[in-house]
Amino acid sequence: MKVIVIGATGTLGKAVSNELAARHDIIEVGKTKGQYQVDLTSSESIKALFEKTGKVDAIIATTGKVHFGPLAEMTAEQFKIGLHDKLLGQIDLALIGQHYLNAGGSITLTSGILTEQPIRLGVNATTVNAALEGFVLAAAAEFNNGIRINIVSPTVLQESLKSYGSFFIGFEPVAASRAALAYSRSVDGIQTGQVYRVW
Amino acid sequence: MKVIVIGATGTLGKAVSNELAARHDIIEVGKTKGQYQVDLTSSESIKALFEKTGKVDAIIATTGKVHFGPLAEMTAEQFKIGLHDKLLGQIDLALIGQHYLNAGGSITLTSGILTEQPIRLGVNATTVNAALEGFVLAAAAEFNNGIRINIVSPTVLQESLKSYGSFFIGFEPVAASRAALAYSRSVDGIQTGQVYRVW
Repeated sequence: MKVIVIGATGTLGKAVSNELAARHDIIEVGKTKGQYQVDLTSSESIKALFEKTGKVDAIIATTGKVHFGPLAEMTAEQFKIGLHDKLLGQIDLALIGQHYLNAGGSITLTSGILTEQPIRLGVNATTVNAALEGFVLAAAAEFNNGIRINIVSPTVLQESLKSYGSFFIGFEPVAASRAALAYSRSVDGIQTGQVYRVW
Repeated sequence: MKVIVIGATGTLGKAVSNELAARHDIIEVGKTKGQYQVDLTSSESIKALFEKTGKVDAIIATTGKVHFGPLAEMTAEQFKIGLHDKLLGQIDLALIGQHYLNAGGSITLTSGILTEQPIRLGVNATTVNAALEGFVLAAAAEFNNGIRINIVSPTVLQESLKSYGSFFIGFEPVAASRAALAYSRSVDGIQTGQVYRVW
């Protein structure tokens, strides 16, 4: 299969690309690095990417920015960061990507453990992750042409503990390679509308 | 208690105001009607509203627009309708409203059955509702001063069947007065972070 991985140059994306490369042709896409570049906050950029790659069998997103900060001081403008980047970025990838998928193709998005286990400063992340899981539930039921869509919800990665560990005190980390398995389950499997929790 | 109901001139909001008026002082707010007006897509409008009302004991939102349309044709611009109106509108009401709540006050938002039971054309609604429920889960855990936050998830209302019935074939409707009970449970109760499903 021809698999496009958006966020392929990040910690999780690298592991996902490695995991899938054993069976599939991987197109690695980053924001500034990788084989191709894309800005998921721009529909034009997403369309331009698919015009370059042509039709694919699987689309994976492992990327997206959210805002971390105290709820007591949060503003709508700060809240929009996650809504426009991680949330609408991944959704627009699916909205546009559906037209560049071969029949029976799949889309796999990424939420995270904060959907269900909120942390201090993380209300934007929980909201965005919950929204993405909602999108997948509804989109799975409405897609045509046998298109499947699932979402992976990893906990904090061992490789990210140096950067994010202080946010995730008491959370058991997993190796990126273990989280990556869930993307294989989505791409190579038959399910749709699933949340694959890795924690 | 002094209770502000945003959306008080709508079908659900009227029933909520009636239900709560038996025990509380209600401030009825609409977009163009009611005692006061507010545009929830504008932080300035929300702040201006609370400057007029002064501090309150409970904030209720029963309002918000989403986009209905086929997933196969949906664009990011259409998707933003629900993200900016129902989603960020209710969230910004909570972000700003927390500073105008008396200690121990409550916020009650509104999602809907589509969070869990998607319908054709409804992917924007499911996404927005799921996001609001995620926001409530995280915000409930982070609010200070004993502020509580819950969300009511009603199914389609009997009073709305003429307008929306064709979207909800096979769904059992409830009377707005029954959905309104859940808002009393939130305002007069002691729970926080709850999704009150009415279906």
